[in-house]
Order: sequence, then structure tokens, then C-alpha cells
Amino acid sequence: MKTSRSPAPAGQPLVRPVVAALNAYVPGEQPRQPGLIKLNTNENPYPPSPKVLDAIRTAVDQRLRLYPNPTAQPLRDKLARLHKCQPQNVVIGNGCDELLALAVRALVEPRGGTGVAPGRSLVQYLAPSYSLYPVLAAAHNADANPVPLRTDFSLPHPDELQRSGWQRSAALTLVTTPNAPSGRGYTRRDLETLCQQVDGVMLLDETYADFAQEHALDLALRYPHVLVARTFSKAYSLCFQRIGYLVGPAPLIQAVDKIRDSYNVNGLGQVAALATLGDLTYYRRNFRKIIATRQRVAEALVRLGFGVLPSQANFLFVRPPTSTAEAWFQELRQRKLLVRWFPAPITRDYLRISIGTDTEMDTLLNASRELIANGPPAE
Amino acid sequence: MKTSRSPAPAGQPLVRPVVAALNAYVPGEQPRQPGLIKLNTNENPYPPSPKVLDAIRTAVDQRLRLYPNPTAQPLRDKLARLHKCQPQNVVIGNGCDELLALAVRALVEPRGGTGVAPGRSLVQYLAPSYSLYPVLAAAHNADANPVPLRTDFSLPHPDELQRSGWQRSAALTLVTTPNAPSGRGYTRRDLETLCQQVDGVMLLDETYADFAQEHALDLALRYPHVLVARTFSKAYSLCFQRIGYLVGPAPLIQAVDKIRDSYNVNGLGQVAALATLGDLTYYRRNFRKIIATRQRVAEALVRLGFGVLPSQANFLFVRPPTSTAEAWFQELRQRKLLVRWFPAPITRDYLRISIGTDTEMDTLLNASRELIANGPPAE
Repeated sequence: MKTSRSPAPAGQPLVRPVVAALNAYVPGEQPRQPGLIKLNTNENPYPPSPKVLDAIRTAVDQRLRLYPNPTAQPLRDKLARLHKCQPQNVVIGNGCDELLALAVRALVEPRGGTGVAPGRSLVQYLAPSYSLYPVLAAAHNADANPVPLRTDFSLPHPDELQRSGWQRSAALTLVTTPNAPSGRGYTRRDLETLCQQVDGVMLLDETYADFAQEHALDLALRYPHVLVARTFSKAYSLCFQRIGYLVGPAPLIQAVDKIRDSYNVNGLGQVAALATLGDLTYYRRNFRKIIATRQRVAEALVRLGFGVLPSQANFLFVRPPTSTAEAWFQELRQRKLLVRWFPAPITRDYLRISIGTDTEMDTLLNASRELIANGPPAE
Repeated sequence: MKTSRSPAPAGQPLVRPVVAALNAYVPGEQPRQPGLIKLNTNENPYPPSPKVLDAIRTAVDQRLRLYPNPTAQPLRDKLARLHKCQPQNVVIGNGCDELLALAVRALVEPRGGTGVAPGRSLVQYLAPSYSLYPVLAAAHNADANPVPLRTDFSLPHPDELQRSGWQRSAALTLVTTPNAPSGRGYTRRDLETLCQQVDGVMLLDETYADFAQEHALDLALRYPHVLVARTFSKAYSLCFQRIGYLVGPAPLIQAVDKIRDSYNVNGLGQVAALATLGDLTYYRRNFRKIIATRQRVAEALVRLGFGVLPSQANFLFVRPPTSTAEAWFQELRQRKLLVRWFPAPITRDYLRISIGTDTEMDTLLNASRELIANGPPAE
């Protein structure tokens, strides 16, 4: 690095101070070491359908030299038919994360603009939920307003919300439903009530909806201020190819669409998602398998003395019966079982365990029995 | 859409005014109609290497259910070896477009912040160049400062720059080199002089560098305020899979890295780019073929009476010998030859023609001869 000149005069850093000060989001570990049982980032234990794999392989040809469809039109057409709406009610993202970031940038004003009402700079969310939300607010130089869920992670009533600092005027409110990391499901009716508590946009992040008893997608087609986010990553075994989407009123979808990169959705991802929609029977069978495994493992963990929150997602949020959750996390890691532990005060007593195959979950249960039998792991 | 209630009080729109007012970037047409010769978006006419296609097909398996490497570490390692730098000098994007947008957001302050020096909100670029740049500035609520190239699209001298409104204090200056749409190449020496004319960050967009006689990548490793953008899309026939990258000083790379989405680079794209770097001989042969075709077509067009700018890219920027460029664009379209015409005053007399296969270019030359022989096309 040449140091003979400093192009930036003192006091004018090259990087924006808001970015320099940012604590970036830390994704769950993606180890590539073989033999590790990966139950830490809620991936589906079952592979994509053979028809999807075939469709992708067939598309690996000279078309790769060409740009993909810039608006993912065939995929939006097919999703619109699935959800009984129009293509202009759907926008596709490079995974849901991109869409969450685009929603913040399209709908929320950065702090400090002149003549901007305070709520217009506010990203609001229930806590705990997806730990990306505060990072997106900070990266956009917006304010974050975490509003606590009840201690059992259920939704507060409207009057409780007010006491907890809820802001009706928030430009964007993000709700993970079913919730992560708790796994708790919320009823469509309670979510509708929640939508009525905001004047800004409500984004219902339904990443885990396929594992739940109900969903609230119709709210995005009935209210002018509600968006629903969905993804092919988890339920549809396509994390690798980054396909998420938003459903909602055309003016909000159009705003997100305007600021996305022109070719934000890679071509083989579009091929994969389209083929996925042609074989939903395969995936629905997997949902049922995962839900059955979740039920069986939850009951077994309760018998071992774990506290187990009711889950409507493809993971369990559990309190170990002995020692600390952090010690359990480390001990399981040593036994090649990778789960997730979140060090924040409200989550530090819990482990989040993704639902794997039955064999993988039996390995987890056996390791848990051992850890309990051998006495509590060292703290 | 429910209309019985309006969640947004009057005067508080749900969408940010800056986004509502934005004229989004319009990408070149991506027709899917068969038989059309596509010479409009500078794609490589040759497919990816057979080794790359094999590597992708082999990777289409159960791994698709897993998240890809979040930092594209193996690809960054390999690019660092290629460019003789460290992995922390490289960040991978979902195509170059994502990286350009991230650079604006990481380095440029939105307008209207308190205590922000005017240049800190300024995105500067030479005009004409990539028409995305002003859109990125507008979407970020930053100011755009287009500084005219000379009328022959060569780089102005430093004293000419000052007269044309160049701002030394601009937070970010974007230079397409070789230039698009003109195709003109710039010397490393002239680019270094240009880098010395800014106190903010200079981003050299080297999308077309593989078709040029020289490049300036080393400037990004020698100056603390210079970034170079590269892409696998055009030279490496991978538009479909969206892989671009930035090379530069670690503090700038880190700033961009902090605000990108965690899993911004799809897995099969990473596989494809890695395999590409393992078969560079194949691609270098294609560069030579494209350069030879470019030379042959340029000479033939000159003989037909076209004005042809010297090109260091995989396209030609030409003035038709008769009628208007717009009329030629339409006439060629009717003959199933799709080229690009930019309606702005400084570019409206030209057509931009991507270099296709020799057969495709012969079709273009024959159509041009016909159009000239039949008399000028109707304006």
C-alpha cells in the first residue's frame, strides 16, 4: 500500500461513519468439515426433489452466457397463480435477506432528514426475533425499536404493546411468524390485530410458515400496508440458490422493485424455483415428516427434563435440564452436533435445534442422555 | 384490496418520496424469442468452458439444501492468488451491479445530513458511461455529478476536468474503463493521473478489461482510495450466475463487506467461478477470437461508410452512414438483429453493437449492406 500521500484530508474519512461503526450481522456457522451434524441454521434435512435437480442440470448449458430474466417473470407468474394474486403483487429477491434490506431502504427514511416525522425513520420489531433486523436499521442509519414479546414469546395484547414502547407511526414493523428463535406460531387473527396497530408498513416474515398450522398471507392481499415474505431456502431445500419473495400491494412491491439490482436473481435459481413449484407434493411430504420428527423429539426432550417451547417451525427452542445452555452448546459441538446458542440475555438460557433427519435427531437424543447421565457438563 | 381504512395518515406516504420519484434503471432487452441475434447487452457469444459446465452439473446435488459459503472464501482465496493480493483485498458480489450499489451506500452520505461536507454526498462519473450510475446516486438520495468526456470519448486532461465541473472532494468517482458505451480504452498511466484528481474513492469499473490492451488493477493495490471492479459475466460467459468482485485496500473492501447480505453469492455461481479460474486458457482463446472478430467487423463497417470508434471492449460504437441511428436500430430489429441504441443527446447518433460469433457478425454486415443498397431506411 502506497503511503506517501493521503488522499482523504483529515476529518473526511473515505468510509461513512455509520458504516465504520456498524456491527455487521454474524450468520450461523457454515462448517464444511465432514461428519458434523448441522442443526444450527434451520436448513431442510431433505434434498430438493429429483425433478428439481434434473431441471437445473438440464439448464446448465450455453444459456449461462446470457443474462437471466431481469424480473423473474415466469416465476412471478407461477407464484401469482399459487397465491391467487397478480404478478405485480410479487417481487423476487436474492434470498429473503435482500428483500428485507430493500424494504428498509424503500420504506424507511434515514435519521436526520429535514421535515421527516420521527416514525418515518423507525424500524420496529418484536424481540427476540431475527437478529438481522437491528443490523438493517443501523446500516440504513435508521432508528431501531425492539418491542419485547411476552416472556413466553407470545404476542403482547395491544394495550401491553403501548406500555412496551410500541410506535404506531413506525415506518416499517417486522414480525417473524412463526417466530425465530422461539418457534412459536401466531394465529392469523392475532396477526391481523397487530397489523391494525401500525400506520406504516407491516412486514410479516413467514420464512417458516410451511411448518405451521396457519399463515397470514392473505393479509398482504387485503391491506394496503402489509407485506408477507416467503423463501425457497428452508422449506424448499434451496438455501444454496438464494430465492425469496415478497407478496403484497402493488405500490409497495413496485417500490422495492425499483431499487433492486436489475439482475438480482440468478438464472439457475429461477430454474430451480420454477421446478420446485411443479413438484409441491414432494415438499409437502417433507413438511409432514419434519413436523412428525419435531413432535417426537420434543416429547423425548421433555422426558429428559428439557424445557421445550411449542414449535410451529422446523426447529425447537429448548432449556437444558442441567448446567448452562452455553455449556451444552460446547459439549454437543465436541460430539459433532452443531446447534445454535444466542448469547443475548433473553435467549442465553436456550438452545435452538434445527430438525434434522430422524437418524440425526436420534444422535442428538443419545448425546443428550449421555450428557445427563455423566453429570452436568462443566460450566 | 381493502379500502375501508387508510393506515397511512394524509401526508405520510408509505413509500419514501425519494424512491417514489426514482426513475429506475432500464436494463437492455432480454428477449426470449428464438432466432433473434442478440448483440445488445455485451454478452460473450461463446459458452462457458465444458469443464465449468461439468463442475456445475456435478454440484447439483443434496448440497443445494445448505447455505453457500457466506464469504465466498475459496473463490476469494483463488482470486487473491490470481491478482497477487490477500483475500481481505477481495469481496464478491451478486454481479458487479450489487457491488456498485454497495460502494455508493458504504462510501457516500445521503443529502441533507447535518455537518456533512458537500462532496461527501457526491457520486461523480464521466459521461457518457454506464447509465446505472446516476440511478444509484438517486436511489441513495445522493447528488450526481456527470463530467463530460471529450467529444471523441477520450479522457479530459486535469485542467479540462476542472473547467467541466469536476469535484476533487467527491466521495465516490466511477470510471468505466474501457468505457461503455464508446468502447474506448484508457491507459493505466492516464487512469493513475485521474485517480490523483480525487480525495474521495475512485472506482475503476473494469468490466471489459479482458478485451483491452491494458488494465489498471494494480492501482487498487497501490492507492488507499482506489477500487477496481471485475466481473465473470461478460468475459467469462457467466451472466446467468451473477458473479462480480471488487479488488482494493482492505478498509474499503471491509466497508462494502459489512453491508452486503450475508449470503449474497449463490452457491452454483461460486462453483462456476472457481471452475472458471481453473480453465483460463479456454477463456483467453475466446478473448483473442472476439478481438479478432471486432477488428474484422470494424474494418468492414468502415468500408461500408460507418464511423467506427476504436474499441478495447467486446462491442463497437458506430455511426451509421445513412439515415439516423434510431432508424437503423429499428430496421435491424426487423431483421432479427438486436443492437443497442441510447436516446440521450450525446449517444443518439450511435449504435452499440456487441461482438457475436463470426457468423452472427456476417449476418449483421449483410443486413447493413442491404440497408445501404436499398436506400436509407425511413426516419
